[in-house]
Amino acid sequence: MKNHLFSQTSEGLNLVAIGGGNGLSTLLSGLKRYVKPEENDIFRIRNLSAIVAVSDDGGSSGRLRDELQMLPPGDIRNCMVALSEDSHLLSKVFNHRFSGDGDLGGHSLGNLFLAALTEITGDFAEAVKLSSEVLASKGHIYPATVADVRLAAKLKDGSIVRGETNIGKVGNFIERLYLEPESCQPLPEALAAIYEADVITVGPGSLFTSLLPPILVEGVERAIAESKATKIFICNLMTQPGETDGFTARQHIEIVREYAAEINFDYVVVNNRPINEHQAELYSHEGAEQIGVHGSITPEIIEGTEIVYGNLLDDGEKVRHHPEKLAQVVMLCGLQLKNKIASNHQSAEIQGVVTV
Amino acid sequence: MKNHLFSQTSEGLNLVAIGGGNGLSTLLSGLKRYVKPEENDIFRIRNLSAIVAVSDDGGSSGRLRDELQMLPPGDIRNCMVALSEDSHLLSKVFNHRFSGDGDLGGHSLGNLFLAALTEITGDFAEAVKLSSEVLASKGHIYPATVADVRLAAKLKDGSIVRGETNIGKVGNFIERLYLEPESCQPLPEALAAIYEADVITVGPGSLFTSLLPPILVEGVERAIAESKATKIFICNLMTQPGETDGFTARQHIEIVREYAAEINFDYVVVNNRPINEHQAELYSHEGAEQIGVHGSITPEIIEGTEIVYGNLLDDGEKVRHHPEKLAQVVMLCGLQLKNKIASNHQSAEIQGVVTV
Repeated sequence: MKNHLFSQTSEGLNLVAIGGGNGLSTLLSGLKRYVKPEENDIFRIRNLSAIVAVSDDGGSSGRLRDELQMLPPGDIRNCMVALSEDSHLLSKVFNHRFSGDGDLGGHSLGNLFLAALTEITGDFAEAVKLSSEVLASKGHIYPATVADVRLAAKLKDGSIVRGETNIGKVGNFIERLYLEPESCQPLPEALAAIYEADVITVGPGSLFTSLLPPILVEGVERAIAESKATKIFICNLMTQPGETDGFTARQHIEIVREYAAEINFDYVVVNNRPINEHQAELYSHEGAEQIGVHGSITPEIIEGTEIVYGNLLDDGEKVRHHPEKLAQVVMLCGLQLKNKIASNHQSAEIQGVVTV
Repeated sequence: MKNHLFSQTSEGLNLVAIGGGNGLSTLLSGLKRYVKPEENDIFRIRNLSAIVAVSDDGGSSGRLRDELQMLPPGDIRNCMVALSEDSHLLSKVFNHRFSGDGDLGGHSLGNLFLAALTEITGDFAEAVKLSSEVLASKGHIYPATVADVRLAAKLKDGSIVRGETNIGKVGNFIERLYLEPESCQPLPEALAAIYEADVITVGPGSLFTSLLPPILVEGVERAIAESKATKIFICNLMTQPGETDGFTARQHIEIVREYAAEINFDYVVVNNRPINEHQAELYSHEGAEQIGVHGSITPEIIEGTEIVYGNLLDDGEKVRHHPEKLAQVVMLCGLQLKNKIASNHQSAEIQGVVTV
């Protein structure tokens, strides 16, 4: 962990965010406002990179995978849009899903755009790069691998389950999660970004189907472990029915450690603001409950890691991280300013820090 | 017909191109190089507008029409791409057709992009405008109407045929071509462009299925007739099997006059360069033959109209207009420079002018 306050801040941070799904795009949409040209602003990201899971096999992505034998574009599209200007017309178009249940119904235009560019260039990573340029995305987006990779799991009863959609239903019974093929390679650019990172985040996102898959790609765990970056695990707000039923924040980290023992997180970011009763009731119908609030934060402490907690909730009926609040906490952790600011009560976001 | 050489040239020309299909996009791709900022260049187009047929019902356009109840985007996409920079990445993506015969197979990405924008805005014309901006198209593209219009024809045997695809097969038997509904309205912006035009072109393109449909939209014939613009009919290179079998250049014009008697064309542009033997053989297998070459040009003269002829062929196996040569002839006619240049032998494009 570098001391950025005294050595790095004038240059801006190199930040790498790892994950997939809504969680990663929420974080990126908050982080992008720190990607700015002013060189004398310490709250500045010089290079923002996302390393995105590509083991999705459901919905529009799954259909494109089947029809065009391409990598699933959905999570990557979400990240590209999150990193573009909110008001950008193309962002709206990219996120548009066709209505109805015809051939196009449910397909998102951005997915189709990536599919077309992949057919044109014959190179998924190049298609992602060019699409990002078209969208004027404020960051680099790397598929976790460009191998045609599927997620698989051996369950405790010895059976094998394949595919992200299926694995998302059996989280409690997984003995070992793995990629097929296990030898899939990361992009050299993604590895380089990890090695040059000042800050690396993992999460928020679906534990088995978004967070672990990119880390399971060959060489990624080692690269994260060897990188001098400040490493931050961002805990989910809610458990996911089927995938993480009953999991505490601590259990999330323990699972990650089980698969990537070499990675030591410097910080674990946890929301401690309770969701409202209406939300609690709605989510309990699906079997989801809030993480990191019930009981003290202390039992969830992980050795060698600081727990940073605060109100990270967004408004609205759905329980989501507030992009700007979350991004601010990440920046404060990355700049190692969280103690200072928390003790001065100058940050609404960070309400406490527990150091073990 | 204005005398642009003495009154208009320093301001640049307002040019309106009417038609559809490959012919219109070929012409536009040649004309776009005259859309330039230099105000003291007489070979300059100030405003380039295309009024595009929207009665297509085949291929990707037809499928989108059926699935999403939208106007057919194909011809419009072709024009947008033709008016954008050739090297523009988005142009390539817009023109890309998905491979295979799955749900997406045969769909062009540009069509899907227009479809998505139409769903977002609820307004096809607005979707066209916004897409053109995204592509940095060097001109305005107007659907001939935004009504959900279909092409229909009463045949000489009294039967009715509906749909562009079907009508393209019975050209020789058409007694009357019409739109359903006949009262469909043009866009006010398209009418304004016609009234403000210095030059209006019709063609090249499929006679019954691309050229006549936009002219049949209510008020368009009258607007063209009343406009002081120089009016140019650009003759097709080849007859189209099923649609214009055996038609001469003269018959093409006569058909247009039959439906739009008020419009007097100042010029008819005809290629007089024979296609090569290989091409003639290939096309004769499909039943297509060259127009405007066999025999003298004289029998094809239409009263009140000057015939401008020259080598307008592009290279390549397919018989196509050469975009730049065709555009140069249009500009010369529009600027009324064709006599001067032809008599000085300074233009390779215009080899002769016949004035009646």
